[in-house]
Amino acid sequence: MDISHLLTDSSRNMEASLVRELLHYSQQPEMLSLAGGLPDENLMPNYPDLSMMLDSQQYGASEGETELRELVVSLARDIGIHTTKNNVLITSGSQQGLDIASRLILDGNSTILTEQPTYLAACQVFNLQGANVQGVESDKHGMSIPALRDAIERSKPKAVYLIPNFQNPAGHCYGLKRRQEIAALLDEKNILLIEDDPYRDLCYENVDLTPITSLMRSAPWLYLGSFSKILWPGLRVGYVVSCDAFSPYLVKVKQAIDLHSNRLSQHLITSFVRSDAYPAHLKNLQQEYKVKRDAMAKELKERLGDVVEFTIPSGGMFFWVKLKNGLSAIKVMESALEKNVLVLPSVPFYPTRHPESDAYLRLSFARVSISEMSRAISILSIVIRDQRE
Amino acid sequence: MDISHLLTDSSRNMEASLVRELLHYSQQPEMLSLAGGLPDENLMPNYPDLSMMLDSQQYGASEGETELRELVVSLARDIGIHTTKNNVLITSGSQQGLDIASRLILDGNSTILTEQPTYLAACQVFNLQGANVQGVESDKHGMSIPALRDAIERSKPKAVYLIPNFQNPAGHCYGLKRRQEIAALLDEKNILLIEDDPYRDLCYENVDLTPITSLMRSAPWLYLGSFSKILWPGLRVGYVVSCDAFSPYLVKVKQAIDLHSNRLSQHLITSFVRSDAYPAHLKNLQQEYKVKRDAMAKELKERLGDVVEFTIPSGGMFFWVKLKNGLSAIKVMESALEKNVLVLPSVPFYPTRHPESDAYLRLSFARVSISEMSRAISILSIVIRDQRE
Repeated sequence: MDISHLLTDSSRNMEASLVRELLHYSQQPEMLSLAGGLPDENLMPNYPDLSMMLDSQQYGASEGETELRELVVSLARDIGIHTTKNNVLITSGSQQGLDIASRLILDGNSTILTEQPTYLAACQVFNLQGANVQGVESDKHGMSIPALRDAIERSKPKAVYLIPNFQNPAGHCYGLKRRQEIAALLDEKNILLIEDDPYRDLCYENVDLTPITSLMRSAPWLYLGSFSKILWPGLRVGYVVSCDAFSPYLVKVKQAIDLHSNRLSQHLITSFVRSDAYPAHLKNLQQEYKVKRDAMAKELKERLGDVVEFTIPSGGMFFWVKLKNGLSAIKVMESALEKNVLVLPSVPFYPTRHPESDAYLRLSFARVSISEMSRAISILSIVIRDQRE
Repeated sequence: MDISHLLTDSSRNMEASLVRELLHYSQQPEMLSLAGGLPDENLMPNYPDLSMMLDSQQYGASEGETELRELVVSLARDIGIHTTKNNVLITSGSQQGLDIASRLILDGNSTILTEQPTYLAACQVFNLQGANVQGVESDKHGMSIPALRDAIERSKPKAVYLIPNFQNPAGHCYGLKRRQEIAALLDEKNILLIEDDPYRDLCYENVDLTPITSLMRSAPWLYLGSFSKILWPGLRVGYVVSCDAFSPYLVKVKQAIDLHSNRLSQHLITSFVRSDAYPAHLKNLQQEYKVKRDAMAKELKERLGDVVEFTIPSGGMFFWVKLKNGLSAIKVMESALEKNVLVLPSVPFYPTRHPESDAYLRLSFARVSISEMSRAISILSIVIRDQRE
């Protein structure tokens, strides 16, 4: 049966995802994976007592549960975003926030600017709308201001999509000055900012985390938050905080696409975040991940220090490791796979052709034990050195 | 702040929903509402024991939880659809199934055929893709075969969207012959069928419920199922069973839009549907709703029998009540609202202009007590008779 005549152009062009295929390998029992973007389930707390949450059974409001929206208002206030619950939409993960934003503004005639590299599942949803996704030169301090100005003037984008804190995959964290410059430029050019901030609480150093949206004065903005990296990703709870003008559109799309996000998850999140256990839980997460981060930094330095380059990330889950001497990340990934070690090559993370798109490995430290990490990096060392000969 | 320049044409044209506005009224404490499409929460069972469902906390598979997919395979088999779990996608309610299907096949150059009237939130999602939604003449036995043939030949649709069992809003149930004729016509013309079947278990008579997809031999098809009317709609769990050709596309879209549906809900549903309590629960639902249906039929006959026409539905939640003598349903709704009775007029349910689009009221019996029903219909009687003068 051939259905290609039924599909839209965007659907027909949906790419087989290299990452999806690779992540299938991660389920093999003998596979040592540094590839996934999963947080550590051993650090996830038990659910609160569920027996009282019967009010979650009936259909609910498209905007989300009032208590959770009010909680998000206070979380936003704590980080410098002053809003009301009318501008808070609860989504099924921040991935859905990206989808809703894309539905509203992107089509085959649109361009959206992203960092280079960027979160690949964001590109998937932008592409599904048929948009032109254009990477803008970025370094370890974030997107380059001259490059952004140039890209805005040339491609008249609908929006700029940024992950300023501990980006997946590159791990960068923008400094305050860069954040201010970006905000000023977007205000000057009246460009919509979509700011995606799922990793902010996985913070291991004293770094600036000011939301760029909180620095903007006039241009439109959407701020996406998530509970997935700090609590229970399987429950699918995230949120969009929006400038006033967007709010009614966001909720109309939400209603059309899945009516509302599941209520039990919202109640569970609200209950835990409001409890006394929450601050201690965050602190524990940060401590545990910091230990793993430091262990990976040590392993990389000792075993690979002469053949790769990397910056130690101040938060998040990933090391973004550059292979020296023009080695191919894809070839390294393939050889490592033969030795039952799974790593992600950088190619899928570059929306636009880029000279370094095959030069990096993304290594996650969130879910591996320190001994697994050590074993995996030893094997990587063998593989990389073999390739250099 | 003006953001209209950012929106796509479809987004800009999203209509204010009369139904959304009306349903806000339903939350006023003194409002007697027959307007909503909610099932009765008093008939929803308690959750199974949740404390063991810790495996639901981590990210999961885009296709859905294996156990639930296997359960859906057996539920499908029971109703004559023979499939494998590779063709089952778990969605966040069947509303999301509609959205995913629409994303795949509809754009500004597409037409989709629907019943007349039809489920309005389906039209919302078709419209969001910019598609042309065309209603096809339908009667109480379902969509008219000559009208469907004619519509297919004229508008070359991408798909036909049907709700054969206890349709929202009109309450019809297709006979077996009509189902067979539809299947044969769609096979002849090779037209995709999207069959939406959320009410099948709310069945109060011995009527044929054969899925039209199970009668098809060659044309592509998607069958949408839901647990929302029989269990816990707040949890957002539905599914799409697809012909082979569609399956890989469905899961790619699902992954892009929200990664996967929440796992705890899936485990809860699986646990309850597999338990001994489930058949007894369904039986109880059917008995309780049948009593309410009969009570509403009696009230309508006794108080309004001379001024309206209606068929007693053999299942589902709704009476579709036609106002005689050219009365306007919108005017009746407005007058009833002044007396704190909320009913839905038919206008939003007609995708295309139709001479009877303002002639019907949709009345739900699912959530009102029999005394509330009696009071509401008494007031409707006053309102309707006033308007006839």
